[in-house]
Amino acid sequence: MKMAELSTASGVSAATIKYYQRERLLPAADKTAPNQADYTERHLERLRLIRALTEVGGLSVARAGAVIASIDSGEPVLYTFATAQHAISEHLDAADIDADALQHVDAAMPGWRVSPDNPGRLAAARVYETFVAVGQADEAGWLAGYAASALQAAEADLNEIDSRVGRDAQAETVVVGSVLGDRLFSGLRRAAQEHVASGRYPAPAYPDDYEEPTP
Amino acid sequence: MKMAELSTASGVSAATIKYYQRERLLPAADKTAPNQADYTERHLERLRLIRALTEVGGLSVARAGAVIASIDSGEPVLYTFATAQHAISEHLDAADIDADALQHVDAAMPGWRVSPDNPGRLAAARVYETFVAVGQADEAGWLAGYAASALQAAEADLNEIDSRVGRDAQAETVVVGSVLGDRLFSGLRRAAQEHVASGRYPAPAYPDDYEEPTP
Repeated sequence: MKMAELSTASGVSAATIKYYQRERLLPAADKTAPNQADYTERHLERLRLIRALTEVGGLSVARAGAVIASIDSGEPVLYTFATAQHAISEHLDAADIDADALQHVDAAMPGWRVSPDNPGRLAAARVYETFVAVGQADEAGWLAGYAASALQAAEADLNEIDSRVGRDAQAETVVVGSVLGDRLFSGLRRAAQEHVASGRYPAPAYPDDYEEPTP
Repeated sequence: MKMAELSTASGVSAATIKYYQRERLLPAADKTAPNQADYTERHLERLRLIRALTEVGGLSVARAGAVIASIDSGEPVLYTFATAQHAISEHLDAADIDADALQHVDAAMPGWRVSPDNPGRLAAARVYETFVAVGQADEAGWLAGYAASALQAAEADLNEIDSRVGRDAQAETVVVGSVLGDRLFSGLRRAAQEHVASGRYPAPAYPDDYEEPTP
């Protein structure tokens, strides 16, 4: 298809498509004639992926480029995991994080094979510092419960990855699952909270003047 | 303590403290004399909470105000859950979401007591739409695995809330857990992914020229 068709089909402007090509997020078109570029279904799929990563996943174009480069590199899927995790994580230095918070997080993951600079380990410890600062230290096995739950989510991630055929398809699932999986999970977590809370707490009748919050 | 001491202790400028008071995020000081305001430990704790919600949780001051009003209102903890969930969620309308995506999400939560407009249910369906759009439909029970995991995380949340003494302390845990819990969980999930992936995939030696990604 021609550039105009690709732009219409993807909902991405021609200028933005050219920008993605310069930034190497999107492969060049096949040249069918000196001045004729031919785009394929593969270009369209790639544009959909870029939109999902940037518009829904909130990645910058540079970070989306890093994870896409990892898909295209042919490197082992295990590396793509590391690349994706770094792309979606704030850069943190273990030396800046409270040692007690790190210790508490590590204690919740007994026997796990996790590198000391895993961005998730550091991010969890940084958030846990904040919990402690506002008087919400873990007093009922909160972190251990979350860690057990995270393990189950990670097993689901890996099952899905294993179901894909071929290294490239697996790498793409790693990227999409890493970038969008947090939001999918947090949505389900809120539904689960309503389910569990409504089972544990007496369900008060809403007062007549109660208004649904609409912030 | 005086305003200057409160500002130093909290790391929040006097101008911002006054702004929070005007917006009713922070109670007024006790008036010890016509021109003397006296701040207490409670003001300091509240400022720490506001900073955690806005700086770490990323809430706007208006949304932080909504969840703090819920803590202060004395309303049942179940309402505070709803307020906190709305405060941290994008507003979505079920009518705008693909019916198949909603059905797929609902099928992953069999028997759950979840209101149709639960913001997490809608957010999960919206993200799942994106998964499908990029060719990553759930083919190996991904959503059901996530839902089972989310249920476990929600049980951990509720256990922690139950461990707090008194309605106000419980409401504060609901707010902090809702706003910061997503980031705590996603960190642990990344650590769990490394653990599970390294157990399933052959661990290739990193090539000599491999550089740790630093996006």
